[in-house]
Amino acid sequence: MKSDLDRLMQQADLDALLVLGAGSHNANMMYFTGRAHLSDGSLLLKVRGQPPVLFHHSMERDEAARAGLTTRSLNDYEPIKLLQEAGSDTVQAAARLWSLIFEQYGVQGRVALYGKVELGPHFSALNRLTAGRNSLEFVGEPSRTSVLTRARATKDPDEVERIRKMGQVTAAVVGDVAEFLKSHQAKNGRLVDRQGEVLTIGQVKRKINLWLAMRGADNPEGTIFAIGRDAGVPHSVGVDDQPVEVGKTIIFDIFPTEAGGGYFFDLTRTWCLGYAPDEVAALYEDLQEVFDSVFQQLKPGAPCRDFQVMTCERFEAKGHPTVLNTPATTDGYVHGLAHGVGLDVHEGPSFSHLESNPDTLIPGAVFTFEPGLYYPERGMGARIEDTVWARPDGGFEVLAEVPKDLVLKIPGV
Amino acid sequence: MKSDLDRLMQQADLDALLVLGAGSHNANMMYFTGRAHLSDGSLLLKVRGQPPVLFHHSMERDEAARAGLTTRSLNDYEPIKLLQEAGSDTVQAAARLWSLIFEQYGVQGRVALYGKVELGPHFSALNRLTAGRNSLEFVGEPSRTSVLTRARATKDPDEVERIRKMGQVTAAVVGDVAEFLKSHQAKNGRLVDRQGEVLTIGQVKRKINLWLAMRGADNPEGTIFAIGRDAGVPHSVGVDDQPVEVGKTIIFDIFPTEAGGGYFFDLTRTWCLGYAPDEVAALYEDLQEVFDSVFQQLKPGAPCRDFQVMTCERFEAKGHPTVLNTPATTDGYVHGLAHGVGLDVHEGPSFSHLESNPDTLIPGAVFTFEPGLYYPERGMGARIEDTVWARPDGGFEVLAEVPKDLVLKIPGV
Repeated sequence: MKSDLDRLMQQADLDALLVLGAGSHNANMMYFTGRAHLSDGSLLLKVRGQPPVLFHHSMERDEAARAGLTTRSLNDYEPIKLLQEAGSDTVQAAARLWSLIFEQYGVQGRVALYGKVELGPHFSALNRLTAGRNSLEFVGEPSRTSVLTRARATKDPDEVERIRKMGQVTAAVVGDVAEFLKSHQAKNGRLVDRQGEVLTIGQVKRKINLWLAMRGADNPEGTIFAIGRDAGVPHSVGVDDQPVEVGKTIIFDIFPTEAGGGYFFDLTRTWCLGYAPDEVAALYEDLQEVFDSVFQQLKPGAPCRDFQVMTCERFEAKGHPTVLNTPATTDGYVHGLAHGVGLDVHEGPSFSHLESNPDTLIPGAVFTFEPGLYYPERGMGARIEDTVWARPDGGFEVLAEVPKDLVLKIPGV
Repeated sequence: MKSDLDRLMQQADLDALLVLGAGSHNANMMYFTGRAHLSDGSLLLKVRGQPPVLFHHSMERDEAARAGLTTRSLNDYEPIKLLQEAGSDTVQAAARLWSLIFEQYGVQGRVALYGKVELGPHFSALNRLTAGRNSLEFVGEPSRTSVLTRARATKDPDEVERIRKMGQVTAAVVGDVAEFLKSHQAKNGRLVDRQGEVLTIGQVKRKINLWLAMRGADNPEGTIFAIGRDAGVPHSVGVDDQPVEVGKTIIFDIFPTEAGGGYFFDLTRTWCLGYAPDEVAALYEDLQEVFDSVFQQLKPGAPCRDFQVMTCERFEAKGHPTVLNTPATTDGYVHGLAHGVGLDVHEGPSFSHLESNPDTLIPGAVFTFEPGLYYPERGMGARIEDTVWARPDGGFEVLAEVPKDLVLKIPGV
């Protein structure tokens, strides 16, 4: 939580945090500024023990004010003059601007770098800024363990409510999609509408975007709606012009965010339209058993890695290869169990099974729980994913309840 | 265009381009990979004189294949072993991974850096990679003049058609919004629906997202719909719970992109609902005159900066302060005339009035044309923006025709 920042900075021996870049598609900036509409070149400075200061373009002064922080216009630093003095070298002008700000706010020592920005010019400008200056060191912490990752990994009640609300939107849209599919008929193994037109994945995805927009959500990262062999490859998103087929696994993974950017939700269901072939039903049963049995073992404060190891062991006991003992496998259980969810769809805590993973199931965490089984060459894959809140009282609450039935009944099958 | 890359790399004395990061919200990666769904950690390497190679996560092999490039799975480099050898330091492991790839592909010399990525860990990893190695230098070119900015600044016919198609979507949605507003009535200076409920900016924006989704577009950067004083501040996006009022300037700036990410369009219209007060009508007339007269002067090959200077001079001749002679002004003409549009809503060419701006109106450029006048303390602002293609035959074509009428008639006014 934000209230942990000064403590976390002290632990990491950081004197300041520097967050660069736009207000949108830039979770670390959004964490401080909310949904303010700020363009590239904005900058947030947090000196340890002091409140953050937001530096903004003059034209965005009203937007910056909405962040509720101390603000300062970049115009105060005469950017055109800086550019002229730098011989029109924008990289040099940026280095000079940041240097002026650092001098004014007494920034020195170890400064951690954040922000999703175009790498090249920032890399150069920051290196020029520290060249020959021993009193200043830029620190690029590993993303998994950075101060902001750790602060963001525990949510305060307001954040949980925003994620829960996105969960309600997500559950409603998953319901819309199920009803939409069930309103079709099967013909020659494919779904067709009343006019006999074949339904495609692209049409389903377009409806998903429409229904999300109707409910006030954005879908900046797209949707996975992958059928058959594609469902057997975890990150295959599905091919738009492919027909929606019956009797094959469909992995439907949806991860929308608040309109204008903000908190994400993440949910996956696996469906077979009309009927499930025996080998798919057996696969899904294995998956559900492991899902339920590991979920019941979740314990506050336990190492996150334990649950990935446990999941692998339980799948292996059922005869499925996993990344634990077959790291490069593309059959069986081939990915991680979970990840934190918040202003990024993937964030802390980490559930990596590596022994070096220090993360624990700390109260306040909001995370996915998403075991899966994949057999691309057999044309099938299945994943079940919920988003879960580690409550301060020690409980684990699924933030959106959505049915887990494998088969959706379709007329004509 | 992509076919210019090797020549531009030679001019800039670059041996290779390294593009890092995800496939979405990362224009330089999308330029090479199209709309492939690739997550963070993906990497594209273009050695001068050779075709680009895309390095992808194993789970994303099908998505990577869709890019139509030579691909290589990152699994081939045994990432878990690299992480263990690095003592679980992900920054060190990334440096080692890139180092292995560079050795394998014979990369040395000057390597330009691209990609919208989380700054900290990339900054550290790249500096570790070059530490003590004289044969390799990372180059962070200024964004305005980088090789990829220059390649992307001229569009090939396929790119122009994709932008034109987004222009048709944009024009249709602007028409939808106008009809929607006109379907309301005025009451006490505000728009109300048939039930007498006051229409808010937030409701209008929600409809915009809905109509864009219906037509297959995304709106990742939001919409400006700013009224009155807010319209007088160019980047104020409008306040959601504020009512839509009659007789005040509304700046409606819409910049959607292809569904799933891709090419943007950018268009602004200024409306007064019901009627325009005299001072607003006079302001708009000044704006239209300058818009038309400068547009007629556009010449292929001319320096872009000339048109910004010309626009300032013509506004100043009409008594409006401008950034040319009053750099910090917040009244009058306070921003640039134009910017390129493509995979980023703001890209090259640049129309900065600074003498150091080298960009010219090169055939193939697609750019906005958007003079504006702002008087926040007088509660008004106006901007007209079209997106324009510099055609190979020397003509300048507006890519979506949308009426420029200031007043929208409203029943009851």
